[in-house]
Amino acid sequence: MGRGDLTPEQIVRLEAGAVVLLDQRRLPVDEVELRCESAAEVAEAIRTLAVRGAPAIGVAAAYGYALAAERGEDLDAAYRVLAESRPTAVNLTWALEQMRGDPSPGRARALHFAEVDRCKRMGTHASALFRPGTNALTHCNAGGLATGGYGSALGALRAAWEDGLLAHVWVDETRPLLQGSRLTAWELEALGIPHAVIADSAAAHLMSRGEVDCVVTGADRIAANGDAANKIGTYGLAVAAAHHRIPFYVVAPTSTIDTATATGEEIPIEERDGAEITSRFAARNPAFDVTPAGLIGAIVTEEGVHRAPYSESLPQVVHA
Amino acid sequence: MGRGDLTPEQIVRLEAGAVVLLDQRRLPVDEVELRCESAAEVAEAIRTLAVRGAPAIGVAAAYGYALAAERGEDLDAAYRVLAESRPTAVNLTWALEQMRGDPSPGRARALHFAEVDRCKRMGTHASALFRPGTNALTHCNAGGLATGGYGSALGALRAAWEDGLLAHVWVDETRPLLQGSRLTAWELEALGIPHAVIADSAAAHLMSRGEVDCVVTGADRIAANGDAANKIGTYGLAVAAAHHRIPFYVVAPTSTIDTATATGEEIPIEERDGAEITSRFAARNPAFDVTPAGLIGAIVTEEGVHRAPYSESLPQVVHA
Repeated sequence: MGRGDLTPEQIVRLEAGAVVLLDQRRLPVDEVELRCESAAEVAEAIRTLAVRGAPAIGVAAAYGYALAAERGEDLDAAYRVLAESRPTAVNLTWALEQMRGDPSPGRARALHFAEVDRCKRMGTHASALFRPGTNALTHCNAGGLATGGYGSALGALRAAWEDGLLAHVWVDETRPLLQGSRLTAWELEALGIPHAVIADSAAAHLMSRGEVDCVVTGADRIAANGDAANKIGTYGLAVAAAHHRIPFYVVAPTSTIDTATATGEEIPIEERDGAEITSRFAARNPAFDVTPAGLIGAIVTEEGVHRAPYSESLPQVVHA
Repeated sequence: MGRGDLTPEQIVRLEAGAVVLLDQRRLPVDEVELRCESAAEVAEAIRTLAVRGAPAIGVAAAYGYALAAERGEDLDAAYRVLAESRPTAVNLTWALEQMRGDPSPGRARALHFAEVDRCKRMGTHASALFRPGTNALTHCNAGGLATGGYGSALGALRAAWEDGLLAHVWVDETRPLLQGSRLTAWELEALGIPHAVIADSAAAHLMSRGEVDCVVTGADRIAANGDAANKIGTYGLAVAAAHHRIPFYVVAPTSTIDTATATGEEIPIEERDGAEITSRFAARNPAFDVTPAGLIGAIVTEEGVHRAPYSESLPQVVHA
């Protein structure tokens, strides 16, 4: 058995004068907290990946905006610096829009716990997609760390594990920043769920040998047609899964769906510093990719399991 | 312009009392040589990847066998320890079979230079597959380091570059041991060929954006039907290339073709220590995968460009 669950407050919270978050850059070696004492410091924590994961950065931005209001900062400037801290996820602007009318700590905390609640509902819906003895594969970290608690894709795995349907999880290490081997393996170990880390490039090989029954990932932004942007490498996994007729599921809260974006082509893809890959040679480092809706077997939100055509099924569940 | 070419003797050679090889584990940070003073020490250098790449380990084994003969070692034991040093490549047993009748230094050196000559002929054949302005993608290292000089897949890129057909090379970093970012980028830089390293998982994304015109890799063993075993990740690249209708080429000498192996299913896949990926968590580390012949657009050997059905085209060029 593992050491148990991370509480939402351990991941991110608002204290007097600071947003305090578990510094995800230093996990799993060091479990240390980072204090951010202004909206700009929260934005810097988001930009440098001290907190990452689309729902979690939305929650951190909401706390950062509440902190700015408490400190009497210029709220338009706070909105801008937080909204612009990363380009791909839609949760940042979604959370800030929610906060605009009532920039109070209580409102931010309610938004945080609503995200955790959505994850638990997603887990229930997604578990119904699993068959007994499933060997699942996941990419990056869509766990409690990424959502502020419980997890989206990892929440689905937790629910399936609790329902007795999950046998084992393959964890893509997720280069260049190793969110899989550093964060997802650490969370699965804590929960006592059997797993093994693999090089990202080994996934297709394992599929070809019948060792993968389904692929489950989170998403950073889902367009109106169902195209889903997520950590670089997700798209290649979906192509490989389709080639092997293995179901590929996206598990994400409705706060990740952006009906104002028609297709994946309109989603901006963040290009990060090549030094994250190598500092010795020229490198190219796109941080996300887009998986076309046609390769996605189901999108699971807290509202249920949605199937293609997504341009019909998604707008019905987004209360925007 | 780069610092130029590695000579075959810089990569591996037989001196009085030792096989001397450039220690590929320490590149590109340190350029140091390793002296192996018995067949067992050569086998250990192969097993621990001080020398790697199917043709290069064949050459190293040939020198190791000649060294064993000079030293008066038991040649059956020397054959066994060298043949068993790694399981996937067929070049080890191929080279040792060549050496059995005449275990002399001159014979080993002739075998070495015949491999280099094959690479140059492969380059000429493969270059004819390139169109002007090609953006190529390669995986792992199939350069001079992997073949004893010039390179197979990288030899094809060199020839296309010299013919004015190559614009740029995407180099998969190739986890877990980073042969792409450590070795291939180092070789391309020396040759002055424009390139950038990418995370392995970014390849499919770049394909989806039209930034890859062809994929070129080497092979560790090619079955009679054309199925090709190569560094883990090659298969996923081939699936992604097929999905995007991008040609996928394997460039390998005839010494890599194993007509005694009917299909890829019979090729043993080496499983290496999970600690190469992470020492903190359970990990699974298959070192190779098999790309089915149906995903390979052409197999280029020193004899020419071979097309499907490979079960007809390959046996004609193997003089076994």
